[in-house]
Amino acid sequence: MTLRLYDTSTRSVRDFVPLQEGRVSVYYCGATVQASPHVGHLRPGVVFDVLRRWMMARGYDVTVCRNVTDIDDKILLKAAQEQRPWWAVAQHYEREFSHAYEILGCLPPTVEPRATGHIPQMIALIGRLLDSGAAYAVGGDVYFSVASYPDYGQLSRQRPDDLQAAADPAGDVLKRDPRDFALWKAAKPGEPAWESPWGPGRPGWHLECSAMAVYYLGEQFDIHGGGIDLIFPHHENELAQSKAAGDPFARYWLHNSWVTAAGEKMGKSLGNALAVDEVLKHVRPVELRYYLAAAHYRSTLEFSYESVTESAVGFRRISAFLQRLAGEPLPAALASECPDPFVAAMDDDLGVPAAVAVIFDTVRVGNGAIEAGDEQAARRAWRSVSAMCSVLGVNPLEDPWRSRDRESEQAATALSALVEELLAARQQARADRDWAQADAIRDRLAGAGVQIEDRPTGPVWAVVSDGR
Amino acid sequence: MTLRLYDTSTRSVRDFVPLQEGRVSVYYCGATVQASPHVGHLRPGVVFDVLRRWMMARGYDVTVCRNVTDIDDKILLKAAQEQRPWWAVAQHYEREFSHAYEILGCLPPTVEPRATGHIPQMIALIGRLLDSGAAYAVGGDVYFSVASYPDYGQLSRQRPDDLQAAADPAGDVLKRDPRDFALWKAAKPGEPAWESPWGPGRPGWHLECSAMAVYYLGEQFDIHGGGIDLIFPHHENELAQSKAAGDPFARYWLHNSWVTAAGEKMGKSLGNALAVDEVLKHVRPVELRYYLAAAHYRSTLEFSYESVTESAVGFRRISAFLQRLAGEPLPAALASECPDPFVAAMDDDLGVPAAVAVIFDTVRVGNGAIEAGDEQAARRAWRSVSAMCSVLGVNPLEDPWRSRDRESEQAATALSALVEELLAARQQARADRDWAQADAIRDRLAGAGVQIEDRPTGPVWAVVSDGR
Repeated sequence: MTLRLYDTSTRSVRDFVPLQEGRVSVYYCGATVQASPHVGHLRPGVVFDVLRRWMMARGYDVTVCRNVTDIDDKILLKAAQEQRPWWAVAQHYEREFSHAYEILGCLPPTVEPRATGHIPQMIALIGRLLDSGAAYAVGGDVYFSVASYPDYGQLSRQRPDDLQAAADPAGDVLKRDPRDFALWKAAKPGEPAWESPWGPGRPGWHLECSAMAVYYLGEQFDIHGGGIDLIFPHHENELAQSKAAGDPFARYWLHNSWVTAAGEKMGKSLGNALAVDEVLKHVRPVELRYYLAAAHYRSTLEFSYESVTESAVGFRRISAFLQRLAGEPLPAALASECPDPFVAAMDDDLGVPAAVAVIFDTVRVGNGAIEAGDEQAARRAWRSVSAMCSVLGVNPLEDPWRSRDRESEQAATALSALVEELLAARQQARADRDWAQADAIRDRLAGAGVQIEDRPTGPVWAVVSDGR
Repeated sequence: MTLRLYDTSTRSVRDFVPLQEGRVSVYYCGATVQASPHVGHLRPGVVFDVLRRWMMARGYDVTVCRNVTDIDDKILLKAAQEQRPWWAVAQHYEREFSHAYEILGCLPPTVEPRATGHIPQMIALIGRLLDSGAAYAVGGDVYFSVASYPDYGQLSRQRPDDLQAAADPAGDVLKRDPRDFALWKAAKPGEPAWESPWGPGRPGWHLECSAMAVYYLGEQFDIHGGGIDLIFPHHENELAQSKAAGDPFARYWLHNSWVTAAGEKMGKSLGNALAVDEVLKHVRPVELRYYLAAAHYRSTLEFSYESVTESAVGFRRISAFLQRLAGEPLPAALASECPDPFVAAMDDDLGVPAAVAVIFDTVRVGNGAIEAGDEQAARRAWRSVSAMCSVLGVNPLEDPWRSRDRESEQAATALSALVEELLAARQQARADRDWAQADAIRDRLAGAGVQIEDRPTGPVWAVVSDGR
């Protein structure tokens, strides 16, 4: 079987063939670090983490580069509002994003470069574009000349004439053509600036990704990703400037759809209500990751507290099954450990919804096997479910979901031991028909927030709390 | 009272007077990210975090810059050994260091710049040194001319002639004087390099700190810190090149002493055994932080598992006292909330050992007050201890030490409730002289790893495990 991915540049699902056998290089656009992350910001983090994990499960050695845009008009505005240096603002939110990605169990990128750390590489790229006639310097700015690049509009499937009409002619008086975009912006008074052959200034947003992707991954690399809102103008401009400079650039373009709330793209105003911290008051981190991963990456995800908690209830069925046989060594997160239909679903442009359906089927089989006393079949199902969950990064028996903190882990272990002990005592009391004692133990557990449910196979228990 | 700090450059304790009223700027040397952090690496992180917190407690607005050395011979060597790009190695260990600092409860620096992200600033600084005659370019390298700077040796109290004799004349044939040091190194084949007016190369180690400190904190700033092993040559060279370029640079130089093990400076070979992860199998993160913070920062810390576990036992007395009245709102981490002797100790060149003695005295008073039933005195002591612990960053009732993970927190809460319930049942059984029932509860708890100890004030309990 071959992994197939939907490539935005050809508008088709293509067989994935890496540039170098056994290796994959991925660049995807990270955050402009000017505000706290909300759920919409994190979707690409989870989507490209699932892609990476699936490629690793198929045996690829994956290199991932995700940039940090640490200079930008919005960062400067925020810095002015908060009366802090721009770099303190950028560093603060960069850290918030790192934490949020980590909380959601995203593997850290192989490299996470900051835009301001790559000014020499950007200046060199602008130099090449000026030399080839694809760019022009005027009044301390440098612009890319869209007219000089005949393939402009190819990625976003737009005709140059339509773009001409849509562009804002009053936008920037120095541009020769309203479609042109800035590669380098002359410094305005009071703004941070770097020296350049065109005078002090700062890089344009599109430029940083072209310069850093090629610096870290080479002039040609496998996959460029990001949210669909970046196709135009960001990725169109990246592609144009990189190709015009002679870099073959990305071989596949992958775009995840956005997260909406009440039908609107999750922007800053909605985002505040849907900050990661806020959502995590309702569900656990692994449940939020599962929610973001379980939808197909090219489908719009309509976020609501109802849907996220409903999804969490589903996930807990998977989690509860895995817990039933916990203690066994976990299988490796390899495609070879997963059932064929799961592999087929993942290979089909990361068909996570179909892959998750395979997980639920296997959970059903496994629970049935436990009930029927078929230990071998139960263990087989457990192994499959564990591997599939690991591949998606949602295996509750694995780090980071298992408590990392030694102290909390001890508390959890002690609690389990105590609850199991009390449940055994209650079973004994019931066997002895000492109903008062059995009820007393039940009440004792309930008083501590531990609810028990009697199943044919024996009691199961969970710690419950408000809002769940 | 005035804060006084030992300034290495004057070899004396000086009143601390900040450059701008109410604000403090601190630069201290961070890690060369080429291996996993060991306990010795983390001491400066904790020491300068205690300095920062004390300054915040005294009402200062503190800006902290800590660099990441992400290019260096050792990183290149490691990259070659591991057959990974140098930037993947650097990013990997940068993240390990960040996690280790975070695990030890160090506040993140206001900005944490990477050396390779500041090549333009370094090239500009070299340009100024060449212009002033303090540096010379030869064969693609640029060197600082020690002879051109009469104050050389001032910080480390060394006489130029002694340095002349000690320097390795065979070291680098391009140098005019064996004491000279590289500001820019011409690229060797296969090594990463950046363009410069002197040809492709990379910056010298000393240069990066001079360039970044001034870029972020200004040409003059309050405090420059680091380990004493950095005084010579690193800080001596930084000071020389910055002053020679016309920057007034740091007003106070603070140096922490190192961590030894079996009498030797903790280096890489010892370091492996004393990796943070390893030590945290023996004590909790807050206990390791307490251990590193409690010694005076200018005293050598002789690390041993015995001393760290002994220190943890001491800390648990503080922690147990705070837990006894937990639930009260925590006082702010302000000097005004701390007893005068604590403030005096901290103001005396961060006298943490004396400050910790005040904490223990107050714990003793507080425990006595509880035993005597003097609730008001008990609460007063509790408030003081809580504030003092917060100032040192070791308050167990505060983040990050309280469980951050919702799930673990629930387990911990449920465990507490259950244990308290069982202890109450046991007290009742004892009151009823039902010794069998009392023992049964005790055994049940012990089976779950919960040990209880009967004190005159009632039973106390703790989760215990192996190795503690």
